[in-house]
Amino acid sequence: MAYEEIKALTFDVFGTVVDWRTSVAREAARIGRAAGIDADWEALADRWRAGYQPSMARVRSGDLPWTNFDDLHRISLVESLADLGISGFNDAALDDLNRAWRKLDAWPDSAAGLTRLKARFVVATLSNGNVSQLVDIAKNANLPWDVILSAELMRHYKPDPEVYLGAAELLGLQPNHVMMVAAHPPDLAAARAVGFRTAFIDRTLEHGAARVAAAPTDPAADITASDFDDLADQLGA
Amino acid sequence: MAYEEIKALTFDVFGTVVDWRTSVAREAARIGRAAGIDADWEALADRWRAGYQPSMARVRSGDLPWTNFDDLHRISLVESLADLGISGFNDAALDDLNRAWRKLDAWPDSAAGLTRLKARFVVATLSNGNVSQLVDIAKNANLPWDVILSAELMRHYKPDPEVYLGAAELLGLQPNHVMMVAAHPPDLAAARAVGFRTAFIDRTLEHGAARVAAAPTDPAADITASDFDDLADQLGA
Repeated sequence: MAYEEIKALTFDVFGTVVDWRTSVAREAARIGRAAGIDADWEALADRWRAGYQPSMARVRSGDLPWTNFDDLHRISLVESLADLGISGFNDAALDDLNRAWRKLDAWPDSAAGLTRLKARFVVATLSNGNVSQLVDIAKNANLPWDVILSAELMRHYKPDPEVYLGAAELLGLQPNHVMMVAAHPPDLAAARAVGFRTAFIDRTLEHGAARVAAAPTDPAADITASDFDDLADQLGA
Repeated sequence: MAYEEIKALTFDVFGTVVDWRTSVAREAARIGRAAGIDADWEALADRWRAGYQPSMARVRSGDLPWTNFDDLHRISLVESLADLGISGFNDAALDDLNRAWRKLDAWPDSAAGLTRLKARFVVATLSNGNVSQLVDIAKNANLPWDVILSAELMRHYKPDPEVYLGAAELLGLQPNHVMMVAAHPPDLAAARAVGFRTAFIDRTLEHGAARVAAAPTDPAADITASDFDDLADQLGA
């Protein structure tokens, strides 16, 4: 398969580029320790992340007006803590905890792989995270994006087609000249449905070592790669 | 004056970061040569750039629907060539000529100065150029932007206040935490009017050596700097 026609790569971020689970659990442990609170912080990270799809669904249905990712996270944090019976954080600590999503470690191959890919392609985020959050993540993890594209710019969340089509338009490209890169089959399926090429990245550890067996695959993707170096190899970058 | 509260710098691009006049004249000469056409290419660059404010005014007044910068340039190119009596370019050559605005040389201090400033601040474009154009300019000139912000995202052209306020919102900052950096007093005045801090950069040669005496100043700016290194010095970056 020839990839000459691909001009830009758009990357999902949470899970695909950064290891949200380890990073959020570590930040929660740090803030919990300072507040004298102990809990299963990985369980909090999981529960918090599980609130993500339902909270976006509330925006999609019109139950909530447009609400950015930071604010959705702040709402689902409170719900997650209540569900898990964790109490004692004051508002300042909750705000601090919410900022954990801006201090995420990249997977070990991310920065170097993106640097390789950037020499040949436009490398862009295409995340449900809001712009300022994605900027903080990039600065924290030295990610060399050419451009930060976000659902916030389209006021639609992935996998709504408006997000992918809006990204292609901002890039000045037809969808078939853009490749969506993600560890999540539904994201890739939605991108394919509007004409993007797709690359599935195998981030087996996204949900922790105990859930490796449940890690997804995507046989419909143009490329399956083990990491961004492998993706660069396969794309000839 | 203390600048501790400044978190992000937003940069005008054409004239402030890149030397559009020299670069556009050079590209026009190259494409003209290939087509067997000779003309005063610096005069074309000047006339073409002079079409910029009137063409944006047509969008602002509603005479044109939202039209991105690439397309406005394409329209004013045809008008400029007609005004100057230059003929003989076919459509493909005109399209090629229009892409000159994506291949602009940076001023000599731009990339290194931005790299210094990026270590302390979020560095963002805030240009009337469209997103894909700004991405190409950055890749061509190795400009290390954290984020590409463009009038295209707000569907308003500078100096409309929506552009500056929209940028602050996307950056997640109050306007007084953002400093607009530009070589053009009207851009800075509009930013100040919505609460931005401002830095005037003295790009005396923007309009060519013959027009140095007419180069602007901006006594109302918080900072006047000779280039981006000087700006970094004054900001303690």
